[in-house]
Amino acid sequence: MARPVVDSNPVLRDAIEAEVRRYFDDGATVAAAYGPQFCRLWESAANHVLGGKLVRPILTVSAFDALLGERAADHPHRPSAIRLAAAIEVLHYAFLLHDDVIDGDIMRRGRPNLIGHLMADHATGRDASHGLLSPDLHWARTGAILMGDLLLSHAHQVFARAAVDEHTRIRLLDALDHAIVETVAGEHTDVALSHGMVEPDLATILSMTAYKTATYSFELPLKVATALAGADAGMEPSLVDAGRYLGLAFQMQDDLLSTFGDAAEHGKDAYSDLREGKQTVIMAYARMTSAWPSIEVALAAASSDEDFAAVTEALDHCGARRYVAQMIDGEIDALHRVATQSTPQVPPALQTVILGMAASLEGRRV
Amino acid sequence: MARPVVDSNPVLRDAIEAEVRRYFDDGATVAAAYGPQFCRLWESAANHVLGGKLVRPILTVSAFDALLGERAADHPHRPSAIRLAAAIEVLHYAFLLHDDVIDGDIMRRGRPNLIGHLMADHATGRDASHGLLSPDLHWARTGAILMGDLLLSHAHQVFARAAVDEHTRIRLLDALDHAIVETVAGEHTDVALSHGMVEPDLATILSMTAYKTATYSFELPLKVATALAGADAGMEPSLVDAGRYLGLAFQMQDDLLSTFGDAAEHGKDAYSDLREGKQTVIMAYARMTSAWPSIEVALAAASSDEDFAAVTEALDHCGARRYVAQMIDGEIDALHRVATQSTPQVPPALQTVILGMAASLEGRRV
Repeated sequence: MARPVVDSNPVLRDAIEAEVRRYFDDGATVAAAYGPQFCRLWESAANHVLGGKLVRPILTVSAFDALLGERAADHPHRPSAIRLAAAIEVLHYAFLLHDDVIDGDIMRRGRPNLIGHLMADHATGRDASHGLLSPDLHWARTGAILMGDLLLSHAHQVFARAAVDEHTRIRLLDALDHAIVETVAGEHTDVALSHGMVEPDLATILSMTAYKTATYSFELPLKVATALAGADAGMEPSLVDAGRYLGLAFQMQDDLLSTFGDAAEHGKDAYSDLREGKQTVIMAYARMTSAWPSIEVALAAASSDEDFAAVTEALDHCGARRYVAQMIDGEIDALHRVATQSTPQVPPALQTVILGMAASLEGRRV
Repeated sequence: MARPVVDSNPVLRDAIEAEVRRYFDDGATVAAAYGPQFCRLWESAANHVLGGKLVRPILTVSAFDALLGERAADHPHRPSAIRLAAAIEVLHYAFLLHDDVIDGDIMRRGRPNLIGHLMADHATGRDASHGLLSPDLHWARTGAILMGDLLLSHAHQVFARAAVDEHTRIRLLDALDHAIVETVAGEHTDVALSHGMVEPDLATILSMTAYKTATYSFELPLKVATALAGADAGMEPSLVDAGRYLGLAFQMQDDLLSTFGDAAEHGKDAYSDLREGKQTVIMAYARMTSAWPSIEVALAAASSDEDFAAVTEALDHCGARRYVAQMIDGEIDALHRVATQSTPQVPPALQTVILGMAASLEGRRV
């Protein structure tokens, strides 16, 4: 089994975090000229942007290093690889901010997210109301929308300024553009699902997941790494497939953890997916079984933790948990095939990185 | 008096509109692969993006043409000037979308904006609620947030891909980056003002207006034109000043129209600024007069059109209208000075364009 990539390189992690911090420090410095409120928004965002696993930037630089081997360390594009990797993490955070506004979420990773923080921080409360939102919530969501806009812009600026030749820059910009369109399309479909405007069948949920998560999280880092390393563009279709398999495996694993895992251990709110009526692969499978009518009734009536625990047990009993676990295995098998058997060949060192990403899933099994 | 620029060139207007339309047509084509809802969002946005005066893109190309004179038509950067001008209009619309989400507005220019349209279009209503928002409003705001993200990304992509040398590209990217940061900072301050978190004094409202409106509307077009024309970068500080004077004059004129003008004639909701408690230069002046205590009481109690008409009359009577009209004259005077007396000299043809922008204000006097 390959070593899990995301846990394996503290030097790389530090370099990426330093780059993200530097951007937020610079931003807060510039923001100071526009008054204390705007400066405070920057500082608050700086306190929330880090704390994740840095899966995306670590994949980006690890893949770049794998493609170039011994030449990587002194390659003229290595600093760009770090900068673009950090920009991808910033992009990820921009998506989280706007998703949280759309979903009305005020928590993430078991603590208040930026919106929750800005709400608590907004102590004036002098105004009566802002339409349907409380003043605190309105102020906090405004901050999240605007900070998301700044971070999305920043990602583009970093890609646009990469110190690379014209051809490589266009490859990078194409990859970013495609990733943003797919992510937005996936989020739009996810909201349409939550509104009952789209049938929540398995195929729709899988493609929504691939668009919303896999493209920017896995395909984009792999494309950026190959472009910066000057690798054969003919490899891209295989890497697009690999990104999709990885993304689906990660998201389904996350769904299993949210529904069947220990909430406290994984920094999640207990039963949050069920409470929010999230359309997951688990639910799509359950919907196809004979147990669904009773699960649907139980879910509609559920309010206490005990109620949701009973729904969880019913979901397990109907086979949804086993089915999704098998689907994850299927994605990982497909990942192995595409990584090891494609033409043109994915270089062995990059195979190791890709399969190492899959290995890091193992530590997150329910 | 110089000729008003924005009314003077139907060929240019057509070229800019065609470029904006082409982008939305391409977007809708790509969107079709992601399902009918996403495609519909693109089509709806396409139906709302045009309809404004195209002040920003027309200024961009007019300034480019003025700087190059007879060489403009065949200059290799002329197609880029059209493309970047259209991208600035798209950026403008992205800001409007996110502002409308933040302000809770569902109307613009006297008809439903994109949010209002998406609300009416969302006929399923199958779900019970999305937090504090109705399902229709939640769906519509989601569309506006996500479309704004796509359009903001597009503006960057166009700037990043401009067919210009490295030095020019960096000038363009710097101008865009600066404009976005200032616009967001201005919007953030505007919301802070509406929450009573910042004192609504004249200086604060003027700087907020300059950041929120003047920078991206006037400074950015002028910077883009000079960069594309390869003009002396030493001119930039004068153009930054010119952009600020123009932006403040336009916004104050808009405030006068909103408060004292004929709402129907200008496509505005009657008394909307007063109803929303918008912090304008008019209110900041009134606050400094002895009439303020009675205006404040009347405004707090106002609900009918007659009430707001009485507040409007009191604002006029306390001298706010005359004062703001004088301030606009002051900005125009300063604009004339900076356009005609700066070192290095602003080329006469560009002076004509800049003063022609000011002239187009004349037609909008109350």
